Amino acid sequence: MSLITIERKVLEKNDAVAAANRARLARHGLFAINLVSSPGAGKTTLLERTLERLRGRVRIGVVEGDVQTDLDARRVARYAVPVVQLVTNGACHLEAALVQQALDRLDLGALDLLVIENVGNLVCPAAYDLGEAMKVVLLSTAEGDDKPLKYPAMFRNASVLVVNKTDLVPYVHADLAAIRRNALSVNPDLQIFETSCETGDGLSSWCAWLEHRAVKAHA
Amino acid sequence: MSLITIERKVLEKNDAVAAANRARLARHGLFAINLVSSPGAGKTTLLERTLERLRGRVRIGVVEGDVQTDLDARRVARYAVPVVQLVTNGACHLEAALVQQALDRLDLGALDLLVIENVGNLVCPAAYDLGEAMKVVLLSTAEGDDKPLKYPAMFRNASVLVVNKTDLVPYVHADLAAIRRNALSVNPDLQIFETSCETGDGLSSWCAWLEHRAVKAHA
Repeated sequence: MSLITIERKVLEKNDAVAAANRARLARHGLFAINLVSSPGAGKTTLLERTLERLRGRVRIGVVEGDVQTDLDARRVARYAVPVVQLVTNGACHLEAALVQQALDRLDLGALDLLVIENVGNLVCPAAYDLGEAMKVVLLSTAEGDDKPLKYPAMFRNASVLVVNKTDLVPYVHADLAAIRRNALSVNPDLQIFETSCETGDGLSSWCAWLEHRAVKAHA
Repeated sequence: MSLITIERKVLEKNDAVAAANRARLARHGLFAINLVSSPGAGKTTLLERTLERLRGRVRIGVVEGDVQTDLDARRVARYAVPVVQLVTNGACHLEAALVQQALDRLDLGALDLLVIENVGNLVCPAAYDLGEAMKVVLLSTAEGDDKPLKYPAMFRNASVLVVNKTDLVPYVHADLAAIRRNALSVNPDLQIFETSCETGDGLSSWCAWLEHRAVKAHA
């Protein structure tokens, strides 16, 4: 049996579990996003700002994926939301079966929105469906304008791009128009938000969109 | 045959090719580093500044690894050094067999130092020996102080840590002492440099060390 056959079997098995996760989330009218990015693009901080702003408006559950440590789950738990930490122990991405275990530990009927924060990795998580409604890819302005071209699969498979750390633009000489242009050249259907968790710029648009989607899924 | 067996076989085969690469580099007295980091930590820019500073002093060859595009090789080629672009076509790391092909296309006898710039990924390249003398891991201050704890394998397998983008420290509230402490808690033997390719801070120490190692390997 060749390695390619094995890899295809792994992906097929993952897709089957992801489909079951998706059906389960749909039964609860639960909108789920799979938040992906390079390490340090600001996934957890964006999530913290989102939890602050949507408190009392949207009931949010969180699944934290990390290679090691529960640092992120501890950060998120301060916002008094249900959170499950998944530690991959070296693996470079979350898989649907791990997320299924996390779903077992959450009261899905008591939630409007599920945020799955993936391992920081702009390559491997692109290939793994977790059962989410959509992938949201975060890109920090400090990473360089060319990243959508160099890591196209993630931008192609995502529905939403959040360009984060816009406050750093003058210091890192980022070109927001070039980032948008490069991202749309890979995926013309990307919806794009621009945020700074430092200044708060753009967070209200992002949160309003997220609330709208959560309410719509629940209706 | 289980997936774990297959994975071990892949790694064993990779290690055998890596050993052959290492022996070949040693025959030419060629010091080779495997430059690894998250996407956008500044590997290519550090390499550009290094090429400028060591021009006429150290004969440098470059192997560029990318998931897609030859953008990096084109940047490096401006410095009139031999460069080979490896495109992994979706794979999340370089493997020794790909690097072997790159070595075939370089005049190894005419070089003192080989820089292999890996795919931007703080997880997967940790497991793949390419035949390098050492892994050099780059971490941008914008990525957050906790990254050595969250992605320990890469910091454990590297010999050198370059903390880059130190000019951003005040804007991203980075704590250089915390980064050093976290990195050394994972790997007490790490040699650490702090650089800014924007201001030039720290580049002379980094380049002096690199020149020293290249000369020593060649002697």
